[in-house]
Amino acid sequence: MNQQYETCIEACNDCADACDMCAAACLQEEDVKMMARCIALDVDCAQLCRVAAAMMARGSAAAKVVCEACAAICDMCAEECAKHQMEHCQRCAAACRRCAAECRRMASA
Amino acid sequence: MNQQYETCIEACNDCADACDMCAAACLQEEDVKMMARCIALDVDCAQLCRVAAAMMARGSAAAKVVCEACAAICDMCAEECAKHQMEHCQRCAAACRRCAAECRRMASA
Amino acid sequence: MNQQYETCIEACNDCADACDMCAAACLQEEDVKMMARCIALDVDCAQLCRVAAAMMARGSAAAKVVCEACAAICDMCAEECAKHQMEHCQRCAAACRRCAAECRRMASA
Amino acid sequence: MNQQYETCIEACNDCADACDMCAAACLQEEDVKMMARCIALDVDCAQLCRVAAAMMARGSAAAKVVCEACAAICDMCAEECAKHQMEHCQRCAAACRRCAAECRRMASA
Repeated sequence: MNQQYETCIEACNDCADACDMCAAACLQEEDVKMMARCIALDVDCAQLCRVAAAMMARGSAAAKVVCEACAAICDMCAEECAKHQMEHCQRCAAACRRCAAECRRMASA
Repeated sequence: MNQQYETCIEACNDCADACDMCAAACLQEEDVKMMARCIALDVDCAQLCRVAAAMMARGSAAAKVVCEACAAICDMCAEECAKHQMEHCQRCAAACRRCAAECRRMASA
Repeated sequence: MNQQYETCIEACNDCADACDMCAAACLQEEDVKMMARCIALDVDCAQLCRVAAAMMARGSAAAKVVCEACAAICDMCAEECAKHQMEHCQRCAAACRRCAAECRRMASA
Repeated sequence: MNQQYETCIEACNDCADACDMCAAACLQEEDVKMMARCIALDVDCAQLCRVAAAMMARGSAAAKVVCEACAAICDMCAEECAKHQMEHCQRCAAACRRCAAECRRMASA
């Protein structure tokens, strides 16, 4: 039953890792102030992605609800990250977009 | 700004504690099988309540989205817990109902 | 059984909220760069405090191990926050110190 | 800098997924009572593994402390899961052992 979630779980774990890495890298940029919104969204997105992965792995009755919320946060984080040219931001934006698409697919399955 | 969230943060923390306590107590009941759905929802609800508290404490751009999802899980958990007469389930059901109401208030603020 | 944990659970929830609030407030300071280490430790400390609260509420076999790790992170976060005069940092430092003391008491109980 | 963590992050994510899947599968076993300790440890282990992955991805100052605690929980969970013949328990035990070894390597690096 949980196998149907496998691709989405993997996308959530990848996105969470990319967001946490991006948050840490942003905090070490020369102009941290410019990255403030990116850092905040990275932390939020990483946290909810890890919960979404957990819910799906447990085949939770609430998995779809959380995936829907996760897709919304991923969209916000992708949009912000895409504005910055640093490799960690571009990598994070791509992971967020992929995760948003997977979560949306799950939420409407 | 985060002060507007204070009552809801407290309700989320209380609900998370009540759910985690209920999950552990259910696992020690004589008839664990009867409590299986309660345990699963307790774990889910506790996890999302802690994330909702975190998002609100950070004044997150995604706080409302997460509060909405949290209210939905709280409803499910309250409905299941209310079926069982044990004190830990009744206490958890009450905490879930209060948290659902607070989260709904936040989500629509 | 979990009642013995109650004071420590409350200290962990308070500390997590104070850390998450401090992280968000630091990100809105004029000189964000000066707050970079504070933000990073706030996020770490909040996250582990919420897990420690969850473990204690579940009467987990691993509660002491996690409380010990939590005390160590609280010490680091308190030390950093104490360097900054902003009210959110001073409040966070106090919450971290109280949480470290409670977690240490639990870990050695 | 975070690349040194990559293998361990992957082991933590895999272990968290295996533990969450095992918890859900145990709750659907005929004899749930026999699985009570396994379920409790699965939930604990999954939760801390996800935090350890997050801490490493952020290159956290507390990553080693959390990895050490994570290894301890993984040991407990592996020992319990290994007692049960179900495929989900055996798979989880293997993931826990691998994660414990990786976390121990990180903690002493």
